[in-house]
Formats: sequence, structure tokens, C-alpha cells
Amino acid sequence: MSSTPASPRVQPLTPPRRFIPVDHARVDFTGGFWESWSNTVRDVTIPTQHMRLEEEGFLEVLDFDKPPSPLVRRIQPSGLSMQHFFDSDFGKWIEAASYTLKAHPNADIEKKIDAIVEKLEQGQMADGYLNSWFVRREPEKRWTNLRDLHEMYSMGHLLEGAVAYFEATGKRRFLDVMIRAVDHIIDTFGPEPGKLRGYDAHEEIELALVKLYRVTRDPRHLALATYFVNERGQMPSYYDEEARHRGENPEDYVYQTYAYSQAHMPVREQTQVVGHAVRAMYLFSAMVDLAHENDDPTLKAACERLFDNLTGRQLYVTGGLGPSASNEGFTREYDLPNETAYAETCAAVALGFWSHRMAQLDLDAKYTDKLETVLFNGALSGISRDGEHYFYENVLESHGQNRRWKWHYCPCCPTNIARLITSLGQYVYSATDADLAVHLYGANTAEIALGQTIVRLTQETRYPWDGDIRLALGLDTPSSFTLHLRIPGWCRAARVTVNGEAVDVKVAVTKGYVAIRRAWADGDEVRLSLDMPVDRLYAHPAVGEDAGRVALKRGPVVYCVEETDIGTEPQRLRLPAEARLDVAYDPNLLGGAAVLTGEALEAETSDWNGLYRTAPPALKPRAFKAIPYHLWANRDPGAMLVWLNEK
Amino acid sequence: MSSTPASPRVQPLTPPRRFIPVDHARVDFTGGFWESWSNTVRDVTIPTQHMRLEEEGFLEVLDFDKPPSPLVRRIQPSGLSMQHFFDSDFGKWIEAASYTLKAHPNADIEKKIDAIVEKLEQGQMADGYLNSWFVRREPEKRWTNLRDLHEMYSMGHLLEGAVAYFEATGKRRFLDVMIRAVDHIIDTFGPEPGKLRGYDAHEEIELALVKLYRVTRDPRHLALATYFVNERGQMPSYYDEEARHRGENPEDYVYQTYAYSQAHMPVREQTQVVGHAVRAMYLFSAMVDLAHENDDPTLKAACERLFDNLTGRQLYVTGGLGPSASNEGFTREYDLPNETAYAETCAAVALGFWSHRMAQLDLDAKYTDKLETVLFNGALSGISRDGEHYFYENVLESHGQNRRWKWHYCPCCPTNIARLITSLGQYVYSATDADLAVHLYGANTAEIALGQTIVRLTQETRYPWDGDIRLALGLDTPSSFTLHLRIPGWCRAARVTVNGEAVDVKVAVTKGYVAIRRAWADGDEVRLSLDMPVDRLYAHPAVGEDAGRVALKRGPVVYCVEETDIGTEPQRLRLPAEARLDVAYDPNLLGGAAVLTGEALEAETSDWNGLYRTAPPALKPRAFKAIPYHLWANRDPGAMLVWLNEK
Repeated sequence: MSSTPASPRVQPLTPPRRFIPVDHARVDFTGGFWESWSNTVRDVTIPTQHMRLEEEGFLEVLDFDKPPSPLVRRIQPSGLSMQHFFDSDFGKWIEAASYTLKAHPNADIEKKIDAIVEKLEQGQMADGYLNSWFVRREPEKRWTNLRDLHEMYSMGHLLEGAVAYFEATGKRRFLDVMIRAVDHIIDTFGPEPGKLRGYDAHEEIELALVKLYRVTRDPRHLALATYFVNERGQMPSYYDEEARHRGENPEDYVYQTYAYSQAHMPVREQTQVVGHAVRAMYLFSAMVDLAHENDDPTLKAACERLFDNLTGRQLYVTGGLGPSASNEGFTREYDLPNETAYAETCAAVALGFWSHRMAQLDLDAKYTDKLETVLFNGALSGISRDGEHYFYENVLESHGQNRRWKWHYCPCCPTNIARLITSLGQYVYSATDADLAVHLYGANTAEIALGQTIVRLTQETRYPWDGDIRLALGLDTPSSFTLHLRIPGWCRAARVTVNGEAVDVKVAVTKGYVAIRRAWADGDEVRLSLDMPVDRLYAHPAVGEDAGRVALKRGPVVYCVEETDIGTEPQRLRLPAEARLDVAYDPNLLGGAAVLTGEALEAETSDWNGLYRTAPPALKPRAFKAIPYHLWANRDPGAMLVWLNEK
Repeated sequence: MSSTPASPRVQPLTPPRRFIPVDHARVDFTGGFWESWSNTVRDVTIPTQHMRLEEEGFLEVLDFDKPPSPLVRRIQPSGLSMQHFFDSDFGKWIEAASYTLKAHPNADIEKKIDAIVEKLEQGQMADGYLNSWFVRREPEKRWTNLRDLHEMYSMGHLLEGAVAYFEATGKRRFLDVMIRAVDHIIDTFGPEPGKLRGYDAHEEIELALVKLYRVTRDPRHLALATYFVNERGQMPSYYDEEARHRGENPEDYVYQTYAYSQAHMPVREQTQVVGHAVRAMYLFSAMVDLAHENDDPTLKAACERLFDNLTGRQLYVTGGLGPSASNEGFTREYDLPNETAYAETCAAVALGFWSHRMAQLDLDAKYTDKLETVLFNGALSGISRDGEHYFYENVLESHGQNRRWKWHYCPCCPTNIARLITSLGQYVYSATDADLAVHLYGANTAEIALGQTIVRLTQETRYPWDGDIRLALGLDTPSSFTLHLRIPGWCRAARVTVNGEAVDVKVAVTKGYVAIRRAWADGDEVRLSLDMPVDRLYAHPAVGEDAGRVALKRGPVVYCVEETDIGTEPQRLRLPAEARLDVAYDPNLLGGAAVLTGEALEAETSDWNGLYRTAPPALKPRAFKAIPYHLWANRDPGAMLVWLNEK
């Protein structure tokens, strides 16, 4: 790795060779799973989140004309207030809300966003600096602690919000505020003499800058993102120097290692996913963006290694990641405890971002599989079915102590899952001039441009509750292009027909995508049938926690057993290896879902006297039911289990 | 429970009806398990602990004639320095060291203790107050925060040290210093008008005061302990009032609930063991002491309920207790995670104190069984075989990340396990005028007074490595008394003979003690044979963590499997239910121990590609070895497991 230059020159831009995601607003979910969730998030989550931001004092931080309100009480392990990064929360809320506006204009929401933007503009310092904490409370301390204080992280989320709002409404005011803020960062940080060689310990601004660049095409915006990614982890560490400058001993760093922020070595040398999980995912997402924009194979190669490390050794079956609360992140490989799983919602959402970006660079279902895993499991579990309660941590086992909350002292997750769902359309299809890739299944209609050709696609399916998908193509004139249909990794038998004629899937499939190149005509119909039995999954033997246990998965959906369905703690069950599991769609379960039923065994407790004895528990039959993991904790509180003991 | 008076009058003293432990110095371990550990602790642990106290600056806090040294960096979750209770650490060291002096006088150790005592005397305030932190740094803040600052906890440990040193050497200086300190506490706290109605949140002084009372027979000493125990948990809480007095909001309390300190309700109403585990054990030990001294059946009944709750629902198989690091204590019942077990050494040591006290009040092997469990497992695991490395947390599963340390920023555990072992003799026998109870087995000679009768007892055995015990009685004149021999709860077949003649154990046994009443003569010989097969233990089905798992125990010794013995992580093993386990004594294993060997199965990893798959792991044979749990982490670092997956 020593041949990697420390700060490579920005490469000349090459024309896009990758797939470009179809804009989310071009995809209209029509009935089915995602329409229901999209409606909930648009109609309930977005308005209630604004209410919470007001109720909880998050928006007060923007009252620059008043004295600052008292500090919130809860602090981080570093001893610093959460309030340092409140900006990120309304930045992310604006982004999430903006995604709803294109297809569903909403004057009230726009008014709320405009009010925030007006205050931000008012608070922006003359040189462009923008952060509500430092502007109001201690402007002299700005940029003195990139290690702990998240200034660029917060600006990055405002920037993502500004780009989304501009794209939704065409209004430039917020975007212009943020471009001035970025100009200020460019003036302050970089490799040039007289600038600080710093970079934010909490990644985020890097990927936001690429989003900005894709709007502005200003090469300085791309160059800044490139600088931050290249500078990361160079030694001696900027954070050491910065700490000494503050009069602190760098060894007093509360997290002890810069691996916490993926800043322990240059990014191209990293092979194991370490540290804070959300930071890692945001960094890797930016690395894919730069691999593309700078045509940089070294960043792509690093991402491929890191993706394989994550998915091969550190990912929960739900797509959750980062097992430990102490660093909100990774520990050792294969450390996947269930009851204490941190598996932050934000981390799963951000794995979705990363996976999706990887799939555009390299059309490989191994990436889209993980996007789909988080969408149906470890990210979606972060929001309640009513759209206004949340999980920060997504455990895979509970004894009933885990309850969804209305708000959180660190509310990063609610707006993150919201922005994922309000922009979900973008993950379904992507295109080049001559290719149309179908990544996700779910009932929708879409209008997709392949160069000059407009394809009107109708996808009819009850997915994920069954595996039959009908695609109808609408075309004004016949057109030749390649249709790429993803065959999910979990599917062991798939059938494809075009206008009733079978496609030889085995021949046509490459990296999990069936490629059908032909001259397509209006009314063409493609049918895809994905076998969707109940899978019993076993974990690698190095995952000691799951030894002797089995997880149930059907299609993309991971299942769990809740005490409320079976009347006993699922931890007491033993699922016989040969137990039959029936699938049935239950329309009354939280908006409808396929459930699994059968008979398991339950460990008898009535004959126990004390904690330990020399005879194993007696086992008696017990009716068994499993529901999709993402729906757990929406009914009566109780125990829950994903990895069931097998008998 | 409402009939319990809030502050009952001190009861008139009644003559002791309980068993009185035989003084530790009257019991001389002769070869075998405990002689080896006693020698290590006396010859290595005690001197090296004094070195650490010096090296780490603990003794500097007593340099009252110099300006205070800088604060130690590590702080508690409350934001307060550990240094507030450094006194407790050398108090406990003095106690541990003192226990060695009776049988093994050591001028150097005495000199070191005298030096500490001299400084303490010098630092004591004119009114008797004594705490190195407050005296030197902020005397005006003394007694303003009993909730967090451990002043009486520290004084309690000094007091235990003073009593032990007085009993070992007859020197009164330290004892007199501490009596003055206690007089000051009596002047300051109590139910009388003008006094503070406070009590320390970290229990300890209560049991220390009873020890003092047993030396002084000053009823005020007993009354103070009684007041503290009775006042505990009375509402409105003293800690609320005290916090408001400091200008703080009581709701900002970092641990959120006074259950953390067993101060959430009056002690006689408590039925579930909650909060900080060490605090709970110290409180309950004091409650037994007071149940005896005050002849108070309500305290005895509370202790019986709490003991059953602990041992029936909250105790690790090793005798470890308090699963959670966040409160150093208890969570919900049946929550016994293995890899994250906190199970602090101090808590197991203190469960030994409590169990032993219970057994004196009520000769029941269920108490002594737990004493023995911690002695051979969850307490002893806290010290390395070389006697100078320690565990604070005693996990039951590791992936190799747990290493014994030389010292700790909160070194409460090293001196606690040391004082347990240097005073171990007192746990072996106890007596009344007409009874001699044998609680523990292990080679020793002892001189025991039953009223006027002196019994010289010789115990010959290889226990715990086998279950054959020979007791030889030496008597100057024949004497009638009852010999009570404990039949451990783990033993399912015991044989007893007196001078070769069988005793009908089934008839003679009550609450786990065989009572043999007869006229004993010099040279009488009792033989006890305890069947000691390898037991497979299963946990109550409510302990989800241990479902499908088995622990191995032989006699009182819990076993574990270490990676270093089997060449693979024990988490990958499956132990067939029918697997034969052979027992062999290995003289070369860390001073000698019985080990278990056999054949298990190992989950194959070579055929895995990724984290999850639909086929269970293939299993292949793997030679299996288990060693006593208390010996783990003394050789090459690696994974360790107590609860093995059963096939």
C-alpha cells in the first residue's frame, strides 16, 4: 500500500461509466409494502419530527437574536454537549422532508423549511462559518476541535439538506448559504501553506460535498472532498497536534484510538472495518463517490475489501452493524452479540447508502442484497409502524426491556430512517444510455430515461410477501437496451419469461443480475418468479453467540419470535431441526405481513427448583409463530428473539 | 412490613446462641489446596500490594504535611475522583496483612502498617473526622454528599483494618484513632434532634461497627450500626434533601435510582437483590450481624428472602454476581450474560462474608455451599496463580480479550480477595459450647475451644481434587459434643464412619449437616467420603443465555475450557450429551489440579464462505480438556468458555 500517494492530484473528470440511479420522484409506489411505508413517513413521520424538533428545543438553537437557552443535560462520553451538533438534526429533517416535496408539494412543510433557512442565513458569520453552537456560544473556539465537535459533520448534513431542497423546489437560498459555508471551509482547510491540514473526525461532509459538486460542477467542491478523504489517517495525526494546541494531552482521548474515526491509517490501507459504525459507512460512501468522480481504482479496491470484511465477518443477519455501545461501533470480527447489539439504525441506513453506491459502480447483486437486507430488516426496524416511534439500537434479542421511544437525546436515527424512506424511489432502478437495472422489487410505476428513450415501467408484485413479479414496459417507440434483473442472493431458483417465453437464467446471469438484451416494444411483459421458501440460516462457527441457533428468513425478510404471539419467552423455545413451518399472509398484522407458524418445543420450568440442576430441562410442545423482524416491538411489550435455539 | 418500626430501640443483648467461627489463626493449612494459596497471598500478594499502593500514589494521600498531589485522571461515572476513597484501599490492605501476622509475625509489614497509622493519626481532625481527601482538599465539604463520596465506606474499611491489626498485635493506636472517628460520626449522625439523619450510600461501615462492637462492647457502636441499617431507604430520601442542599436537582442523580445503593425502600421490605452488588453484600452481611446482636428476627427473615432471591435467580454458577458493568450490579432476574458478566471479584468475596454469617445463625449447608462456591470459583478467579495479577470482572466467556492486570485504577478487588484468603481459617470451623461444625474441607490442623474443652483436629484430604476426608480428634480428656459435618449440596452420595463404624447419613443429616453426638475420645477418627463425579449442570430455562448449554462441575469446582488447551476457540465445540469425561490430576498445571478430558465435536469452518448459510456447520471430533475455572487466564491468552454448547 506504500505506493499510494499521500495526497494524489485530483484526476481529470471522465464521463460517467456507472449506472445512474433513477430519481426518486420518478418512481411512484403503487400499493404494497413500500407505498404503505412511504405514506406513513410522508404523512406522519415528517410532520411529527418537526414537532419534536420544536418541542425538544432543537430549533431554538437558531434564535441567534436571543441569548442561548440553557444547555441540554445529557452529554457525550467526551463530556461535551450533544447540542454541538443539533444543526445536523434539522439538516437531515430538511433533507427527508424535501424528498417528499417533488411528488407531493406541501406549502406548510416548505414554510417550515424556509423559516429554518432564514435563521441559518441570519446566523451565518461574515466569513461563511456556520454552526449554531459556536456562532452563539463560543465563536473563538470554532475549528479548534475537529476530533470531538462535529462542526463539518453538522455542515455536511445542512449541505445535504440544502441540495435536496434545491432539487425539490428550485429555491437557491439555502444552497447559497451552504456554498458560502463550503467556501469558508475551502479557505480554512487544505494542504496549501497557511491552511489547517484537518478533517472532521465524524465523516459526512465528504459525501455531501460530492452531492454539491454534482449540482454545481465546481471542481473545488470535489477537490475538497478528495482532500478530506486522502488526508484522513495520515500521520502524525492532526488530532494529536490539535489536542496539544488546546493544551490537552492527546493520550487523554476518551476513545483512546483514532480507529474510532477510521483515522488510524490512510483510507486506502484499511482492510478491516473499525470504529464508529456510522462514521465508517459515511466515509465508505464518500470513497465510492470519489472512486467514480475521480476514476480512482485504489478507492474502489479499498471499498471492495472493506465491504467483504464487513459482510463476511461483522454484519448481523438483519443488516445491523456495530455491535458495541461503548464506541457505537465495531469490536473484533465475528463479535455479534444479540441482546446487547447496538446496531444503530443510522448505521444500517448508511450501509444502504454505501451498498447502493457500490452497486452503481459494479452491478453485482452482492451489494444490492445488502441494501435490500437493511431496507427490510435492520434499518426499517428503527421506525415503528405508526411512524412516530423509534429504535436507536436494534437488538436481535430482548427480554422485554427494549421499548421504542418518541424522541431521543441524540435523535440522529429518526431523520436518517425518514430520509431513506422518502428517497426510496432512487434505489429501485438505475440506468445508463443502454441499460436499465432493476435492483429492488415492490409495486410501483416509474418513468425512466435511457438517453433519449423514455421507458414507462409498471412493476406489479406482492413482494416481499411473495416472489412473483410482473414488469410491463411502456415505450413510445421500440428501443434496444439491456434489462438487468436482480436475482437476490437468497433465491436458489428463479424463472424469467419475456412475453411468456422463458429466459435461461443460468446462462443470462452475471453477478446476480440476469441481462436481457433485445429490442423492447410497448406492452412487453417480463415475469420473474423467485422461489421464496423459509430458510433456516446458520451463523459461521466463529460467531459463538449463535452456536446451536437458527435464524428464519424468507426472501429478504428476517423473522423473529415475540413473546406476545406465543405466550412465553422465545428464549425458552427449541425449534426442532425438522419442524415444519407454514407461511400465511396475515392482513391484520400491523398493515399485513406474511407470518410463519408451526410447532416448537418449550423448556418446562414448573419442575425447577433453583437456578442450576444436573438434568436438562424437559421439553413440551408449544405453538410457534414468527413475524418479520422489522415489525417487532409494535404491540404488547415482551421478549423477542431472532436466533432461536435449535433442537 | 408496615409494622416494622422505623428506628427500633436497641435490643438488650442476649447471650450468643449462634455458632462462633474459630479464629483464623487457630487453623493451620497443612499441605494441599489452601496452604498453597495462603502461602502465595502471604508471601507474594501482601508485599506486592503495598508496593503498588506506593507506586500508584495511593499512600501519598496521607502526606498531610505536603500540598496534595495532582488528581488521578480516571473518574467515576458520577464525575467524581476515585481518590475520594483511596483510604479504603490501604484500610483493606492493613486488614489483609494483619491476618497474616498472628501466625507469621513480620516486623517489616508491621512497620509499614505503623507508618500508615502514624500518618492517619496526624491527619485526623480535632473533632475526630478522618478522610484523606476531605481533610487535605476540601474540609468544608465533608459530610455534604453521602450519596456519592464514600466517606463512611472509607472509614469502615479503616475500621476493619484497625480491628484486625489490634487483634493481631494488641497495638491500640490505630484502633483508638478509629474509635475517635466513630465517636465523631455518632456526634454527627443519628435520629436525635440536631443530628443529620444520613447514612452512607456505599454500605460497609455497618459491618465494621459490629466488628468494633465485638471488641469494645460499647453499646453506642452497635447502636450506630443499627441506626444506619434501620434508616436506610426511609422516605423522603436523605439523598434528595442532601442534593437540594448542595443546589443540585436530585433527579440528576447519575444512577437514577437509589436501588443502586439498596436505599429505595427500608431494608426489611426488600425482597429482590438490586443495585450495586458489593454494596448489597456488605449491607446484608451487616444485617445478619445485627440480626444476631440485636436478636432481630425481622432482619434474619429479610436476609433469608434476599439470599433465596440471589441464589435462586441471580447468581452465576461460579458464585459471581452482579451481571452489569453500568451499575456494577444487578439488572433483571435471570439476566446472566457470560461474556459481559461483570461479576466483580469484590462481590463474590462479599457473598462469602454474607453466606458465612448466615450459616452461623442457621446451620444450613445451603449457605456454606455458596461460601464454598465463591472460594473455589468466582472469588478465587480474581487473583492469578502467581498472586500478583487480578481480575476485577470475572467473565464466564472470553474471546481472549480479557487479561489479568497488575493494578487497577479502582483497586478494590485485590485487597478484598487478599483479606479473604489471609483470614480463610475462620471459615473452616465454628463452635458453640457443645457443637463443632466442620464447614469446609481442606488439609489443616486446628485447635478449637468448645467451652472449656480443647479439641485438636487434624483434617487430611486432597480436597477439592477428591472427596475423601479423614478427621482425627485430639482431646486431653474425653468429652461429649456434637460434631456437625457438612454434606455439600453437590454431593449425591456421602459415607461417614466413626472409628470405622458407619453412620447412617440419611438419618443423621439436617439441612445438609450430619450431626454426630457422642462422647469423643483422643484418637477418634472420622472418615467422610463424598462422591465426586463430573456433574453436567443445566441452567433454568429463563436464563436464555445458557439455553442448550452445559457447565461442568466436579465437587465444588466449576470447570472451563481454554483455547490454549484445545487449539481452537471453545465456542466452536459441541459437547455430546453422552460424551465420557475422564478425571485426572495434573501435577504440572499451575501447582496441580484435576482436569477433565474427553472427546467433543468441533464446528468445521473450512467449508464456510461468508457469515450465514442454510446448512448447519459440519462437526468433526476434537480432543477436549477442561480446567478449573479459577485457574483460567494464567497461561497463554485465548478464548475461554464455561457454558459449553451441548450436542
